[in-house]
Amino acid sequence: MIAGEIRLKPIGLVRTEVRDEEVRHREGISQLIFDECLTSALEGLEGFSHLFVLYWMHRVKEEDKVLKARPRERLDMPLLGVLATRSPHRPNPIGLTVVQLLERKANVLWVRGLDAFNGTPIIDIKPYDSWDMRPDARMPEWWLRLEAERSKPV
Amino acid sequence: MIAGEIRLKPIGLVRTEVRDEEVRHREGISQLIFDECLTSALEGLEGFSHLFVLYWMHRVKEEDKVLKARPRERLDMPLLGVLATRSPHRPNPIGLTVVQLLERKANVLWVRGLDAFNGTPIIDIKPYDSWDMRPDARMPEWWLRLEAERSKPV
Repeated sequence: MIAGEIRLKPIGLVRTEVRDEEVRHREGISQLIFDECLTSALEGLEGFSHLFVLYWMHRVKEEDKVLKARPRERLDMPLLGVLATRSPHRPNPIGLTVVQLLERKANVLWVRGLDAFNGTPIIDIKPYDSWDMRPDARMPEWWLRLEAERSKPV
Repeated sequence: MIAGEIRLKPIGLVRTEVRDEEVRHREGISQLIFDECLTSALEGLEGFSHLFVLYWMHRVKEEDKVLKARPRERLDMPLLGVLATRSPHRPNPIGLTVVQLLERKANVLWVRGLDAFNGTPIIDIKPYDSWDMRPDARMPEWWLRLEAERSKPV
């Protein structure tokens, strides 16, 4: 049904000292290092407190992609379509995370809360605005259950 | 600095009767028609009320891409880096919009609020969750000014 192939180029890279195993906690600070020719394209971003980072989950292998999976591969979770989750094992492994913008110096941004590994290619960023806030959004039971566990002190 | 090319395939297409000139108002209903082989990958999405649509703004031509621009090309707006805006004229013309999920039937979703033209390729969707809500996010003066005008009755 759907023909065509889309080609894009990384516009920057993630640099972080957060270890792979810790990245998903979204607590660390990352640098977003952009191609120097894009420095002027970042001007004015400081007016926003938050931004979306779109990145390419480059470690996902073709054979890892699935149509259905259980969240965190847990047997007490429902079997879901992968597009109904934020799993990286999706048809186009694009990551999307809202982060807090801490600082910009020329072609480098410092952000808090990114769950991308060190070395991840960045494909786009977008300022976060009121249209992205949906306080009335509803999540399913399984999502709320996973999140409640996450918030518990260890 | 940044090498490599990323290739991705559309996973579906936008179908809408909203005319091109009206799309940006985000008021209409769109169908997201996915490749039939991805039907099972959509299962469970109904548990979420909202989702992100990532789409490829296929009408943006290479020569339309800019580093800096004024929002809506208005002279009373500041000259900003294109990555500090949601302009389509960015290095990788990926669109990102939060929409309300109205219904799913097999490989078709009905959503409200998408600002993509009829025929736009979809590259990913993601369920919207609490981590995407940032009610404390701050926007710059120019953004608030544009938005205030938008809300005014005509």
